[in-house]
Amino acid sequence: MSIKFDIEHFKGFVGQGDLTAIKSEIEKAHNELENKTCQGSDYVGWTDLPSRIEDSLVEELTQLGKDVRATSDVLVSIGIGGSYLGIRATLECLQTAEIPVVYAGHNMSADYHYRLIESLKDKDFSVVVISKSGTTTEPAIAFRMLTKLLKEKYSDEEVKKRVICVTDQKKGALRQVADKEGYKSYVIPDDVGGRFSILTPVGLVPLAIAGVDIKSLVDGARAGEKEYSKMDLSANAAYQYAGYRYLLYKKGKKIEMMASFYDNMQYVAEWFKQLFGESEGKDGKGIFPASTILSTDLHSMGQLMQDGERNIFETFLHIETPRHTIAVAHDEANLDDFNIVAGKDLDFVNKQAFQATAEAHFEGGVPNATITLCQADAFHVGQLYYFFERAVAISGALLKVNPFDQPGVEAYKSKMFKLLGK
Amino acid sequence: MSIKFDIEHFKGFVGQGDLTAIKSEIEKAHNELENKTCQGSDYVGWTDLPSRIEDSLVEELTQLGKDVRATSDVLVSIGIGGSYLGIRATLECLQTAEIPVVYAGHNMSADYHYRLIESLKDKDFSVVVISKSGTTTEPAIAFRMLTKLLKEKYSDEEVKKRVICVTDQKKGALRQVADKEGYKSYVIPDDVGGRFSILTPVGLVPLAIAGVDIKSLVDGARAGEKEYSKMDLSANAAYQYAGYRYLLYKKGKKIEMMASFYDNMQYVAEWFKQLFGESEGKDGKGIFPASTILSTDLHSMGQLMQDGERNIFETFLHIETPRHTIAVAHDEANLDDFNIVAGKDLDFVNKQAFQATAEAHFEGGVPNATITLCQADAFHVGQLYYFFERAVAISGALLKVNPFDQPGVEAYKSKMFKLLGK
Repeated sequence: MSIKFDIEHFKGFVGQGDLTAIKSEIEKAHNELENKTCQGSDYVGWTDLPSRIEDSLVEELTQLGKDVRATSDVLVSIGIGGSYLGIRATLECLQTAEIPVVYAGHNMSADYHYRLIESLKDKDFSVVVISKSGTTTEPAIAFRMLTKLLKEKYSDEEVKKRVICVTDQKKGALRQVADKEGYKSYVIPDDVGGRFSILTPVGLVPLAIAGVDIKSLVDGARAGEKEYSKMDLSANAAYQYAGYRYLLYKKGKKIEMMASFYDNMQYVAEWFKQLFGESEGKDGKGIFPASTILSTDLHSMGQLMQDGERNIFETFLHIETPRHTIAVAHDEANLDDFNIVAGKDLDFVNKQAFQATAEAHFEGGVPNATITLCQADAFHVGQLYYFFERAVAISGALLKVNPFDQPGVEAYKSKMFKLLGK
Repeated sequence: MSIKFDIEHFKGFVGQGDLTAIKSEIEKAHNELENKTCQGSDYVGWTDLPSRIEDSLVEELTQLGKDVRATSDVLVSIGIGGSYLGIRATLECLQTAEIPVVYAGHNMSADYHYRLIESLKDKDFSVVVISKSGTTTEPAIAFRMLTKLLKEKYSDEEVKKRVICVTDQKKGALRQVADKEGYKSYVIPDDVGGRFSILTPVGLVPLAIAGVDIKSLVDGARAGEKEYSKMDLSANAAYQYAGYRYLLYKKGKKIEMMASFYDNMQYVAEWFKQLFGESEGKDGKGIFPASTILSTDLHSMGQLMQDGERNIFETFLHIETPRHTIAVAHDEANLDDFNIVAGKDLDFVNKQAFQATAEAHFEGGVPNATITLCQADAFHVGQLYYFFERAVAISGALLKVNPFDQPGVEAYKSKMFKLLGK
């Protein structure tokens, strides 16, 4: 049931000896994280979050989901960054939503939001709005548009049932709105930053409404907490991953390509990019996180991966067993010569493409590792989230940055507020 | 009507003087391209393709589109790489399709193709299959699956009307299939590589069926051909772009972030990544092309862009006028303090975010340029495609690589065929 981490294709680039050489640095990072003496220690509530989640909350949200789905054709999830990516990553990975979920306030495209509002006019919908402060520009403006539409469509009593807020416990604009209007609300804890918040109500509320098995998601994260919180470098794959990618970075591999032959992992890779990019990318340092879905992008980025600048390493997000099977059709004429795989499952062919690619990129000078989930189900994606969270805490510490802040995002915001006259 | 290219935020990184210093190199590249004495000169048919497209073909395809739409609920477009990205880029950019278009054979996901086949069972659909050879694994296998379904649903006569092939004029498996089965077919010219093929039948056939105004698309490309084929560096924005990005690369900017505040440009950026990545990424050289949609990704990659490794430059794909307007709603309580923009169009706020971001990234050490289209319509996207095609021909030559080949993609393919026993 565990995540597998395979480094066969690191050979000649980095190895066991290199990892052992930084073991004391990893131990130091581990101890400072556990003792809350690390940089940014006010924001390490995610470390034991899975085991602290109360079963009663999971039950309550599961029931909430049933209630909302009973009255809604569609759920609008308003949020950006950490209040968007983990939700979308989970839904697209699992493909099990029981109600369509659309997003708002994750950009400021007039075309996007115009079309969204038009599409909702003849549907029954509910809204989850997710914002710690309530004053982040994109979701705040989208929430205005959506509440306007709700108020045009429904009575005050009905609107009250169709808005759910996920926000700060006490302060902020959205907390005030929730209290004033009597909207149901759930709390974003103070000690968990946005990019680590998928297992807080930020993720759990919309996912429960979508019909995701959040109990399994939480159970998977708990399994991850158990496995990846231990300072045993020979057993802790998250720490191995953190250590190796740091070593590769030191050797000039400035770009990490998160690649998957499973297209449902696209937004898991986007979530990963926020987690690592925002945690590491500071003080002039940090691996540049990129992503590809294969074999699609072998036909676009494949040439460069094989033969371009050798400043890249690759991490494959692999799935052992997809949800469905579909056989390659037999063709009497066989002009394309693919009867050799007729009757085999398409995933068999996909896996040969994966193996061939991992070998070819390795031989071409791109070291690559593989992270394998046995299935892309709620349990294992929960476990994977925790795996990456632990890894980034260590890799940030190895880089000697604070992995839990994001001071650089203020620069454009203050300029924008000035331009807006705010 | 022209594309604007703004380099205000290159100041202090590269300038007019640097560009002038490589003018003779650009002239040499231009002359060798025009005289067909450059590397890969067998594949420069795209240079005067727009002016060679016959109006009668455009008319024929426009009529074909009407006929197919009359009998189909959905179009399945089978293809990968250059036979996928330009089509999807155009459709998502324009958002004007008159029929849903779904893709197949652009990956080997069993889950994806299982769901696709299931969703088509109760619909009337037609198929465009696009492959020069007919033996590219992904589209060949998808075509088998789709023809199997067509033959289960329809009579032989009806299947014949529902399959359209875009392939080689004379040779290859798909040409043989088309001739044997009597499928309608269109020709991929020999002198235009896949990533340059959007204005050949590769793009024009599925786009015409989707209901895109392909006459405007071609007219835009013709305007681009007229404007960007001239060796006048002070006027040719495509050559300026090519020169500056080469200069930035030489100064250690190894990553180009193609960024847009317009989410409909996401797949235009993906198309760009193939065009530039596959053309430049060889012989251990080449800028790594990445992409972001903003303001979405300001909340994920924004920290790193502002404050991470300074090995990045950024190119904004900007749109002057979106298709729709939508006003920011007034809110009596104004707890979020956004009544300052109430009544204004959402795009006004988006544009302030853009301006703030371009300035902040520049001040943070990320030089950035802006490519502006007045509208994201068929004419201007056609012009943009030609702009980028001209630019990559020059930038590849400056890097001293052959921008028209892709030898690196054979490595994984030969390994895969071996694993498949082919």
